[in-house]
Amino acid sequence: MNLYRQYASEIAAMIAAGQLRPGDRLPSVREARARRGISASTVFQAYQLLERDGLVVARPQSGFYVNLPLAERSTTPAGPSGGIPAEVQVSDLVFHVLGQVRSRGVAPLGSAFPGPELFPLRKLARAASAGLEAMDPGAVVEHLSPGYPRLIEQIELRYRIDGIALMPNEIVVTNGALEALNAALQLTTRPGDTVVVESPAFYAALQTIERLGLKALSLPTSSVSGIDLDALATVLARERVGACWLMPTFQNPTGALMPDASKRDLVALLARHQVPLIEDDVYGELYFGTARPKPAKAFDQNGLVLHCSSFSKSLAPGYRVGWVAAGRYAQALQRHTLMTTMSASMPAQIAVTQFLKKGGFDRHLRQLRGALHARMSAASRVIETSFPAGTRVSRPRGGYFLWLELPRALDAMDLHTLALKAGIGIAPGPLFSPDTRFSQYLRINIGHDGNIVLPALRQLGALAHQLDGVSP
Amino acid sequence: MNLYRQYASEIAAMIAAGQLRPGDRLPSVREARARRGISASTVFQAYQLLERDGLVVARPQSGFYVNLPLAERSTTPAGPSGGIPAEVQVSDLVFHVLGQVRSRGVAPLGSAFPGPELFPLRKLARAASAGLEAMDPGAVVEHLSPGYPRLIEQIELRYRIDGIALMPNEIVVTNGALEALNAALQLTTRPGDTVVVESPAFYAALQTIERLGLKALSLPTSSVSGIDLDALATVLARERVGACWLMPTFQNPTGALMPDASKRDLVALLARHQVPLIEDDVYGELYFGTARPKPAKAFDQNGLVLHCSSFSKSLAPGYRVGWVAAGRYAQALQRHTLMTTMSASMPAQIAVTQFLKKGGFDRHLRQLRGALHARMSAASRVIETSFPAGTRVSRPRGGYFLWLELPRALDAMDLHTLALKAGIGIAPGPLFSPDTRFSQYLRINIGHDGNIVLPALRQLGALAHQLDGVSP
Repeated sequence: MNLYRQYASEIAAMIAAGQLRPGDRLPSVREARARRGISASTVFQAYQLLERDGLVVARPQSGFYVNLPLAERSTTPAGPSGGIPAEVQVSDLVFHVLGQVRSRGVAPLGSAFPGPELFPLRKLARAASAGLEAMDPGAVVEHLSPGYPRLIEQIELRYRIDGIALMPNEIVVTNGALEALNAALQLTTRPGDTVVVESPAFYAALQTIERLGLKALSLPTSSVSGIDLDALATVLARERVGACWLMPTFQNPTGALMPDASKRDLVALLARHQVPLIEDDVYGELYFGTARPKPAKAFDQNGLVLHCSSFSKSLAPGYRVGWVAAGRYAQALQRHTLMTTMSASMPAQIAVTQFLKKGGFDRHLRQLRGALHARMSAASRVIETSFPAGTRVSRPRGGYFLWLELPRALDAMDLHTLALKAGIGIAPGPLFSPDTRFSQYLRINIGHDGNIVLPALRQLGALAHQLDGVSP
Repeated sequence: MNLYRQYASEIAAMIAAGQLRPGDRLPSVREARARRGISASTVFQAYQLLERDGLVVARPQSGFYVNLPLAERSTTPAGPSGGIPAEVQVSDLVFHVLGQVRSRGVAPLGSAFPGPELFPLRKLARAASAGLEAMDPGAVVEHLSPGYPRLIEQIELRYRIDGIALMPNEIVVTNGALEALNAALQLTTRPGDTVVVESPAFYAALQTIERLGLKALSLPTSSVSGIDLDALATVLARERVGACWLMPTFQNPTGALMPDASKRDLVALLARHQVPLIEDDVYGELYFGTARPKPAKAFDQNGLVLHCSSFSKSLAPGYRVGWVAAGRYAQALQRHTLMTTMSASMPAQIAVTQFLKKGGFDRHLRQLRGALHARMSAASRVIETSFPAGTRVSRPRGGYFLWLELPRALDAMDLHTLALKAGIGIAPGPLFSPDTRFSQYLRINIGHDGNIVLPALRQLGALAHQLDGVSP
């Protein structure tokens, strides 16, 4: 038996014997490590198993607690309309797993970034230098939030080209999209509020919800067409929702793309309830089709959509230049940024501006999309032939993530542990959910060089076969 | 009578007549502007006047309310040990005034930055370019928080040279010191907690306290030797304090420098009560004497000092490269940064690293200190001869701010209004306090070219004379 299953059965036995009673706190990861010499990963997996079995519950910022006996539990049905608002405790697990897969030497199938060789980093370096040398020194400290005006012009221009009407002064430049998303959520909610997210959801959304003391309401999300709008309508009719945090285009991790009509309906539905939409659109430029999918922002007539994006996935990773078209929240967001980080870094803003002005951006994007599409196709073919029968895989129309469902309830955390030993990183499903419903899913980043990705995928498939063989 | 005094007397008359009753909310700035056509500045000044007279009270995030009649008010004495914890509502005023003085064409005596011509911006641009072109592309996304390892080494090296022992892995690179300070305060407190600050205090500290729903406890602070340690000891014995946010070296706005012995006592006192010290040390390198003043961090034996600094005031304004030596909070702070901004911008980190490695930093700092010292002396002389008799001015031993007290209760907001019309920005005292005790003070930035600063100071002195002539 695995170490974590053994530890979980010991705890289960103590609960059964009444040595641990409802409401008792389980040992923290640190305590368990100190007392038992077992790893944080083992403790997490054990507690997740107990949680899945309903024996314990997680409380954010606090730990795991023995659950009430079944008959005493509240019986709110999850129902087809999706879950109930729940506190989130996924952040420690996310840090733990991402810390493991981030090391050099580990094949980056669990990474959030595509291969750095896909970006024009040398051109950007020269653009930074030229821009900074030519700049009026006073400008270095003059352009605090909302950002460098020349950059804002370039960003506004791209919206105009895409036929999206902005309100005046709606753009605020941020330190990457992550700052935009965090600030947007903080501005639109108060602690205790409910935030609607996709299920599965981008783990940073869950971490932010946890950090701000909010509750996540996870709604069913198709890996083809995105969040279930009927479920959302039911929820909005039933209860107060502080905000929606969604990724309607090439959702992370599923790759789902909501059709235009659904995006329009989504924006209209939220507008009727005056609920702001925080739209994470960082993958929008990475489409494999012929035209950029419209963001939900394109249908916003009320300034209720905070459209967050960045150049990190499309042009300049590591530069930390993002932005938000913040609608009616623009001034509040600008002030929030002034108070927390003051502005994005000027060299990065200048480099990106120079590059956009020179007009090489669209050519670069065409190359980038082509490369990612080719890598996606090659990776999909390898997965079909390498993984156990019954493995299901998404077919995204953009981005660089594949979302796999393992057959026969194979456990993605188990596969993660095996893969890591073999020098392969993956992003297991539990990172993407406040509950355990994605324990047999994993996200694969196919955005790196085929010479790295394809052999790693073959090996990962072999490990999944191995796991399949030893499963009960 | 000034417009704002007129508006204040109308409100006072309505209170006296019982048309506005205790607990009633005064019109918001927006409402007053819409109804009366008066400016935000006028409304603010009127409400501050009423607040000073005890007729109204401010509530954070909410507005101004009619106060209880005198006999019904609680009578907690402020006493020599300093004030009582109070909610803060200064952020709107700060944004309002800083927005006014930040325009080009306004003499930057109210700015927070020294003259950009003092910094080696071209060399930095070349360093950024060289560093980025030479860098392994993978490194662009590899060095998330805690930051670029080569930069962290350089920062650690400077602590070692200064004889300050750090804990291992204590440094986290941030988007400027402001992110470090915000994150440090958020990590060490919970909403409702009391935070000890200097009186007067750096307005960003007050804004952060307001934003996070904390209470400020302002303690008497000498413009020579810093915060009153006896008052702090009394407070710590009396009540629970979540954190101290102090600037022991060249305090903003007073320029106060705590002696080493006081810093040692401060750290020991806080350690006895297990209260973290958030030390804002962004001006530490800008000393006029022969050696860098030790930070309080130098005396930290318990990992309780979060020492926040940056290169924004010493080398690279606008680059947004700061850091915190976070003691026992380092891992939590690293995770907070990963979740909120992910990392500082790589081009900026690389440019600063290259510059530090080449060894030109100390030579640059010597020139910068010399220039600021000369500007400080010249500005002080002009103030002595230009301002009304009875004006008092600080004598800081570093930095680039002077703290002026106007005589005969002349109002700094009045002077600000006059000065702005004459194209001169200042930072009036009310920005630096949750109450109105610094209404006759102002902060002057002397860090810009003498050809700009000195004539502006002469004119400002003339305006103060003018104000003095018309005062009651």
